[in-house]
Amino acid sequence: MTFIARSVYDDPAFFERYSRFRRSREGLAGAPEWPVLKAMLPSLSDLRVVDLGCGFGAFCRWAGEQGAAAVLGLDSSEKMLARARAETGDPRISYRRAAMEDVEFPAASADLVFSSLAFHYVADFAQVCANVHRGLRHGGHFVFSVEHPVFTAPRTPEWIAAEGRPAWPLNGYLDEGPRSTDRLTAGVLKQHRTLAGYVNPLLAHGFRLSRLEEWGPSTEQLQDRPDLAGDRERPPFLLISARTESLTL
Amino acid sequence: MTFIARSVYDDPAFFERYSRFRRSREGLAGAPEWPVLKAMLPSLSDLRVVDLGCGFGAFCRWAGEQGAAAVLGLDSSEKMLARARAETGDPRISYRRAAMEDVEFPAASADLVFSSLAFHYVADFAQVCANVHRGLRHGGHFVFSVEHPVFTAPRTPEWIAAEGRPAWPLNGYLDEGPRSTDRLTAGVLKQHRTLAGYVNPLLAHGFRLSRLEEWGPSTEQLQDRPDLAGDRERPPFLLISARTESLTL
Repeated sequence: MTFIARSVYDDPAFFERYSRFRRSREGLAGAPEWPVLKAMLPSLSDLRVVDLGCGFGAFCRWAGEQGAAAVLGLDSSEKMLARARAETGDPRISYRRAAMEDVEFPAASADLVFSSLAFHYVADFAQVCANVHRGLRHGGHFVFSVEHPVFTAPRTPEWIAAEGRPAWPLNGYLDEGPRSTDRLTAGVLKQHRTLAGYVNPLLAHGFRLSRLEEWGPSTEQLQDRPDLAGDRERPPFLLISARTESLTL
Repeated sequence: MTFIARSVYDDPAFFERYSRFRRSREGLAGAPEWPVLKAMLPSLSDLRVVDLGCGFGAFCRWAGEQGAAAVLGLDSSEKMLARARAETGDPRISYRRAAMEDVEFPAASADLVFSSLAFHYVADFAQVCANVHRGLRHGGHFVFSVEHPVFTAPRTPEWIAAEGRPAWPLNGYLDEGPRSTDRLTAGVLKQHRTLAGYVNPLLAHGFRLSRLEEWGPSTEQLQDRPDLAGDRERPPFLLISARTESLTL
């Protein structure tokens, strides 16, 4: 078994505060980007599905409900997996502790690899692309969301006023690498990369891009969630769907 | 002949100030993103090349020097084309006045369609994709640059200081549409679209994405051009290369 770095999600204070998030309490229904991400997925009926960074397992259970043949949820946090197991009764769903960069699932063993808001913690995204490509069958699907590069870039990620309208102080965009924030607990490390830094490794590792979405709330969503207004000024999430084809490096 | 809207480049004040730009005076050598864009091009030997928004014709002449079989430069500005013709002696190169959205070149008549910093003036980019796809042979190349969406988005596009470091006041990103700026002359209209707003129309119209670059100056370039330092904080240009394949709408 390979060494797995201690997950920030195993920090009791972080875990407790994370658990209070709307998306933690309400699962997929609490994630405002879910309708768009869902529309980028293939029909899951009879598919073998892997979820990288499965957290409490909300997507795994949904995949089971959609008729997936088998679902494997991977996460580096024992506390997340313990709760995921406790909330899952479907025998086609299993969970395993693994770091996203190190996971090596058997070649061509999956039809869909999914990941929600996890890869911005990963330093080596090219390694993820290589592993996922090997794990997927030919024509398999890779659908994921991450924090948008304009969201992760700034050195001081706090809204400012520009002639009375909120503005996001974008800088450091082209300098990829770690960003330390004090969100939820001190010193959480995210990995900023550019949008090209997500797209080009996919293309280089034999994926073909199917769709790219920069998510922000719709006008209807803003009526229910006025707290999301800033997310129309700059998108918080980047959503990508891609498919495997022959490696042509 | 279709109606061609009067080009802002035919405004004498705009034209005079544009002509003083380094990239106008020095051609390709004055465009700091050119080395990256050039690396995204195929070998031009014997190719039939179209340049959308050819301006003074610097790229058309370079394509001729690279051995292109034929080069057609299109622009909506008579003044630009007059100077392009005056500076071009190569009989394989021709110029024609046309608006980028309306141009309909014969089906499969080109091997490469190129465009530099022009499409952010175009309201209907999907129409451009449809026209270019029809004009390219199967497997043909579409390589272009535009002002980066984070550059075109802000309502007040002026640097601010965020804890002592320059920051670009990003807002309005998800609201695609016209942006009026007073650059060079009053009321120049650009069309802001998101990065997804460039990528998804390409995919929908039968292109396959080959590479995406968010250009900013290298460390070496900054030694010669310290005035470009802000362009590492947020990229000014988006560069895309794509190839045609069967239309699968």
